[in-house]
Amino acid sequence: MAENALIVGAGKGLSASLARRLAREGMNVALAARNIEKLADLAQETNARRYACDASDASSVTKLFEGVEADVGVPDLVVCNVANRYRGPIDELDPAQVRRSYEITALSAFLVAQRAAKSMLRSGHGSIFFTGATASVKALPHSVPFSMPKFAVRGLAQALARELAPRNIHVAHFIIDGGIATSWKTPGEAGPADKWLDPDAIADTYLQIHRQHRSAWTWEIELRPWTESF
Amino acid sequence: MAENALIVGAGKGLSASLARRLAREGMNVALAARNIEKLADLAQETNARRYACDASDASSVTKLFEGVEADVGVPDLVVCNVANRYRGPIDELDPAQVRRSYEITALSAFLVAQRAAKSMLRSGHGSIFFTGATASVKALPHSVPFSMPKFAVRGLAQALARELAPRNIHVAHFIIDGGIATSWKTPGEAGPADKWLDPDAIADTYLQIHRQHRSAWTWEIELRPWTESF
Amino acid sequence: MAENALIVGAGKGLSASLARRLAREGMNVALAARNIEKLADLAQETNARRYACDASDASSVTKLFEGVEADVGVPDLVVCNVANRYRGPIDELDPAQVRRSYEITALSAFLVAQRAAKSMLRSGHGSIFFTGATASVKALPHSVPFSMPKFAVRGLAQALARELAPRNIHVAHFIIDGGIATSWKTPGEAGPADKWLDPDAIADTYLQIHRQHRSAWTWEIELRPWTESF
Amino acid sequence: MAENALIVGAGKGLSASLARRLAREGMNVALAARNIEKLADLAQETNARRYACDASDASSVTKLFEGVEADVGVPDLVVCNVANRYRGPIDELDPAQVRRSYEITALSAFLVAQRAAKSMLRSGHGSIFFTGATASVKALPHSVPFSMPKFAVRGLAQALARELAPRNIHVAHFIIDGGIATSWKTPGEAGPADKWLDPDAIADTYLQIHRQHRSAWTWEIELRPWTESF
Repeated sequence: MAENALIVGAGKGLSASLARRLAREGMNVALAARNIEKLADLAQETNARRYACDASDASSVTKLFEGVEADVGVPDLVVCNVANRYRGPIDELDPAQVRRSYEITALSAFLVAQRAAKSMLRSGHGSIFFTGATASVKALPHSVPFSMPKFAVRGLAQALARELAPRNIHVAHFIIDGGIATSWKTPGEAGPADKWLDPDAIADTYLQIHRQHRSAWTWEIELRPWTESF
Repeated sequence: MAENALIVGAGKGLSASLARRLAREGMNVALAARNIEKLADLAQETNARRYACDASDASSVTKLFEGVEADVGVPDLVVCNVANRYRGPIDELDPAQVRRSYEITALSAFLVAQRAAKSMLRSGHGSIFFTGATASVKALPHSVPFSMPKFAVRGLAQALARELAPRNIHVAHFIIDGGIATSWKTPGEAGPADKWLDPDAIADTYLQIHRQHRSAWTWEIELRPWTESF
Repeated sequence: MAENALIVGAGKGLSASLARRLAREGMNVALAARNIEKLADLAQETNARRYACDASDASSVTKLFEGVEADVGVPDLVVCNVANRYRGPIDELDPAQVRRSYEITALSAFLVAQRAAKSMLRSGHGSIFFTGATASVKALPHSVPFSMPKFAVRGLAQALARELAPRNIHVAHFIIDGGIATSWKTPGEAGPADKWLDPDAIADTYLQIHRQHRSAWTWEIELRPWTESF
Repeated sequence: MAENALIVGAGKGLSASLARRLAREGMNVALAARNIEKLADLAQETNARRYACDASDASSVTKLFEGVEADVGVPDLVVCNVANRYRGPIDELDPAQVRRSYEITALSAFLVAQRAAKSMLRSGHGSIFFTGATASVKALPHSVPFSMPKFAVRGLAQALARELAPRNIHVAHFIIDGGIATSWKTPGEAGPADKWLDPDAIADTYLQIHRQHRSAWTWEIELRPWTESF
């Protein structure tokens, strides 16, 4: 039977590549975003269902999972891609925006992961993946409102990896250490210059980590272009 | 002239030891907490001023710094000790409490650090210290609501260390990797069994890091009992 | 044209799984070990060439690569699996064995990597993989003679990843964080209980990392069983 | 009774600052180096004994400790400063020099630490400190022969910290993350520009870590100038 995949925070770039890659594997793909208008073409191309969802709102996340589970069943793979990139020098930051940045990036990840875990604990298996960034492990100047929630999501992923692995749920955190080539690619289109991360290449690794045998699971993996100093 | 120290999230244990240690160095000590009734004895003993403050509220933090600066001047050292210890299995957590835990532990640290940085950037120097825990770097099962903000505070501290060091502000993150002996000690009282972290010993290290020459600053240091496996 | 893979430190367990997995991909496999008698069956099964080599001896490593390059060409993938597991309390260790442990585990890795890099810098591409262990990142009591070279190999891998990635050579370090199920499996045989790392599963990940697009390379990945606390 | 300190790999810079700082604390200082001619002035200034020792040679290290113990007693603090800085691109490195670099930097640290541990396990207490570098945790291009032993020494320090702390021996690893101002300073001389690490400031931190109460020990601490990006 086909697996079900849910991508939260879907947009162009990585999410689109993931949707295509998972659909090509025969998975039923569900796409969730605040604005699902922009996902029309991708949904058609990947035969995916779209769900409007504000992932920073608990009831919206509950409704999302109820919808997905009614339509296709419990997800076997949930990818959490939601993030906000607010930045600035410490003395110029707006506390309200710092709080909002936490809600969009970290609270969302928690809400999605919790709801996914509840369903997967019932179904007995599944993968919960988080998309991280350089700022997940290296907090640079002027990155306070971005690094704080990204560090928090890594803490979430690590705690859940330890908590859920013995219950047959594979939690993984992907550190995307570099810029993603973000042109919306149509299938067959020539790839981006490979000094940026090709989202199709990232998607390949997400799939491989999802396919790992549980005797040899990875909880964290970093990806960067061959040209990137680190 | 005497230095000014502000301890936010003051209570028994580490904060009390810090207050005593810094007062003994001749510093003017200010203690901030939501409930300042409990600080009466400590304030008298250390000749400290007390300030009622909800550190997760931006206007309360602003009022705190205005008070301290009017009373004794810009702090030379600010220690952020605020933390909430909500824990539980992922499927039993209350999202509202997870959010509140983030506000108490991480948003507070941001608000205090931002306000401290603004004043210190004007005064041209200062130290901003954060008290971390094992969960700042190692997220264990059932620790999601504690590890998320603790990881976030570490990201805050690391970003600020990089951002503010070249502006002569020393930001440091202390990983307290073990339980603190928390009996409220009166001066001269016999120490706790040293399998727990003696808060007086922790306070010594805080002071030493504050005293470091800026050509050899530390941004992170971990402390654990000699008996603690890690 | 078929790729060439060289596995140094070949034996049962992971090396055998790798040889089978790479041969199944159509690669020409070369196996190097001090004692190649024990590799007879594996070589026959995987159609691999065997090379006697003491990897801690520079001239022996040179001879190995000359042989492989004459027989099949420059390797596209070199896996360095050599390790010695000498352990003991600090006050009982024999300095001569500590030195020997370093030579077998770390100096060997350097010699193999250097020789591989020289050839790959000429051929213009390739992958150099190192098999690490828990002790590569976490040095436990009584592990001095094992952790020292394992940490050193990680330093080697990290330096080379930074140095060689921009020259189109993919260097990766695999942290095998748990025990490997080591029964010599015949093809089709039922797998080991999955509380131990299945070497076939590890081999899958090595192949996937080798196949990564260079715009999204990984330099380090850890693998552990779903049941392993970490 | 005065404490005894032994500095192995003594020279100008950090070792000289340490010798002065520890002597000022009233400690008996012993200085060990391959060439002790250059230590004449420092020895006179700090009232230190000098010992000729090749720390990469086990019998020479044994003789060193026998001498120190006969002259002043078991050291309470041993600082291992020995290091070699051989570097180069991977394809230009001389294997013999790579091996020698390991012996000078890592084998020496092991031999000194083992001998120190044996004596301290008998005396029941002591501190064993290792001087690390950026390369102890971050291996940069062309640093293979330096990063390998520096990573190894960190593994040694971490294993020993875990192994010896419960036996009342404090093992610590200092990451000196930046250049040290190395002019041989006479007491009272004006300090170096503080964009380089002032060795006197580093020495202060070594002493403070040695003085830590065992309920709150640090096993690793990094030091860098306020101006250093990291």
